[in-house]
Amino acid sequence: MSETENLPTMDDVLSAAERIAGKAVPTPVLESPVLNERVGGRLLVKAEPLQLTGSFKFRGAYNRISRIPEAERAAGVVAFSSGNHAQGVAAAAKLLGVPAVIVMPDNAPRLKRWGTERWGAEIVTYDGTRPETREAIAEAIVAERGGTLVRPFDDALVIAGQGTIGLELVRHAESLGLELDTVATPCGGGGLTAGVATAVKALSPRTEVYSVEPVAYDNMAKSLAAGSRQRNDPAARSICDSLVPPQPGALTFEVNRRLLSGGLRVRDEDAGKAMRQAFLHLKLVVEPGGAVALAAALTGALECRGRTVAVVASGGNVDPAVYAEIIAAS
Amino acid sequence: MSETENLPTMDDVLSAAERIAGKAVPTPVLESPVLNERVGGRLLVKAEPLQLTGSFKFRGAYNRISRIPEAERAAGVVAFSSGNHAQGVAAAAKLLGVPAVIVMPDNAPRLKRWGTERWGAEIVTYDGTRPETREAIAEAIVAERGGTLVRPFDDALVIAGQGTIGLELVRHAESLGLELDTVATPCGGGGLTAGVATAVKALSPRTEVYSVEPVAYDNMAKSLAAGSRQRNDPAARSICDSLVPPQPGALTFEVNRRLLSGGLRVRDEDAGKAMRQAFLHLKLVVEPGGAVALAAALTGALECRGRTVAVVASGGNVDPAVYAEIIAAS
Repeated sequence: MSETENLPTMDDVLSAAERIAGKAVPTPVLESPVLNERVGGRLLVKAEPLQLTGSFKFRGAYNRISRIPEAERAAGVVAFSSGNHAQGVAAAAKLLGVPAVIVMPDNAPRLKRWGTERWGAEIVTYDGTRPETREAIAEAIVAERGGTLVRPFDDALVIAGQGTIGLELVRHAESLGLELDTVATPCGGGGLTAGVATAVKALSPRTEVYSVEPVAYDNMAKSLAAGSRQRNDPAARSICDSLVPPQPGALTFEVNRRLLSGGLRVRDEDAGKAMRQAFLHLKLVVEPGGAVALAAALTGALECRGRTVAVVASGGNVDPAVYAEIIAAS
Repeated sequence: MSETENLPTMDDVLSAAERIAGKAVPTPVLESPVLNERVGGRLLVKAEPLQLTGSFKFRGAYNRISRIPEAERAAGVVAFSSGNHAQGVAAAAKLLGVPAVIVMPDNAPRLKRWGTERWGAEIVTYDGTRPETREAIAEAIVAERGGTLVRPFDDALVIAGQGTIGLELVRHAESLGLELDTVATPCGGGGLTAGVATAVKALSPRTEVYSVEPVAYDNMAKSLAAGSRQRNDPAARSICDSLVPPQPGALTFEVNRRLLSGGLRVRDEDAGKAMRQAFLHLKLVVEPGGAVALAAALTGALECRGRTVAVVASGGNVDPAVYAEIIAAS
């Protein structure tokens, strides 16, 4: 394919915003005087744990599934996901009256699996230590049963849906009379980052956009530095279960290498500390992978001093026992 | 005093809304398909943990302190509180440039004490097992040093400030094309309940308003039933540290006996379960006392079947270790 022809545009984001209006939650942007003081700047936190299904993934999934022609809807959708995309697809499919099959790892957090089943989706599991097999399993289901594969990030309509977060952030900043110096988002396959960057750079070209990854899964940072897609070490482990793809998407990488100012990294330990700060000062439940952009701001990996910085808290689907251990210990 | 002359009015609430605009957070109203399904109705949750200082108390405190004449501000304010009013007063005083002395129990949650100190307030402690002494201690400070006593609930301007929550709830419901059948709020001294009832009954007379208390501190429910103010057992204990006043306020009781449809009670155990449900399905951190109205909805003490019900989650200031134990266990 010609990569540039398929890149999502600001028009795609605006169109997605119309599609999801009244379905997705226009999530609030939270702020804490304590955290502002700590980072020495103005820190805006986009609260996607408050999104339907507890993460941003519903936005892209709904936008994508809503474009499936009526005649093809009865055949259903198929998706593969470690959990948040699974729930987003399951919910969007349910609201649009489309059957859904979700391919999930057998070690997905229980809350994510439960949250997928409750929307009526059929679950097919795979060996969670072999994420590279998941796409093939999903494609085999499509080949056998028909239906539309809804990719977690490498799809222009999915990226455009996530981009509505960037649109809402810029509009919110404007409503406060602020201009955003920097925006940072958690980055797994890169769909959230690519969507947000598409919207933010179109509306506010001087704003810098960064991806943030766990150090063990820094495939986007390495790819940006190398100028080509790099794979993660398959033996890597991280508490950030929502940010562990084998490598960046082809499309998301094309967008991100054009628009990002760089790729940042945070330690799992700092993601845990950011979860605790969000608990204490924002009263927001954030999952490990959802907290890495906030962690970048709090550790200084993302410079906030004297700046207006927006970070996306991308999800809050974390099992109670895991959460309890992290906030009591950090 | 003539009780009726001093009762807060809808005009007072509207005036408070103007005062706090741009200072208080117009907190979002959260909703979960899981919880809606569970209660068999439409359950709207007003998220006051997302308020500045982590509870609704900032609203009343800011409204009250902003009315102190300029000439009297330098003498400062004095308040007594188990923690949330303390933080609300400390923050409002700081924003208005007024010195604050706060009388707090020596067993207040650490997070609440820290949250009060960080706004620059001076803390004076009292024996937390003897809450009946706290008002006398605060009055002695006023007698000695001067300044304005900012009562936690028995003050028309404080009540009117909390009433802005009722105003926002009714407006939100209208924006969704809904009419509220019922509104319920946590109830300590009764200021939040009285304020919300004042606004809700003025704007939507057929909406029923209920107070919700821990069973061990059901002074408002008992007072409403008896037609006169009843005291709590001084030996009572509850995990709901924000809802343990000796008795209802004189003014709050006058408002509540006129406007409420009744007083509900929930067990501490059910407040804990409601905190866990808020964690799982709303991604909102709620403290024990802040969760009792949600608990009433989830236990069925507050009938939700086929109805549109709004509950106030009034605060989220809970120590991490306490929270971890409750959500991991409930």
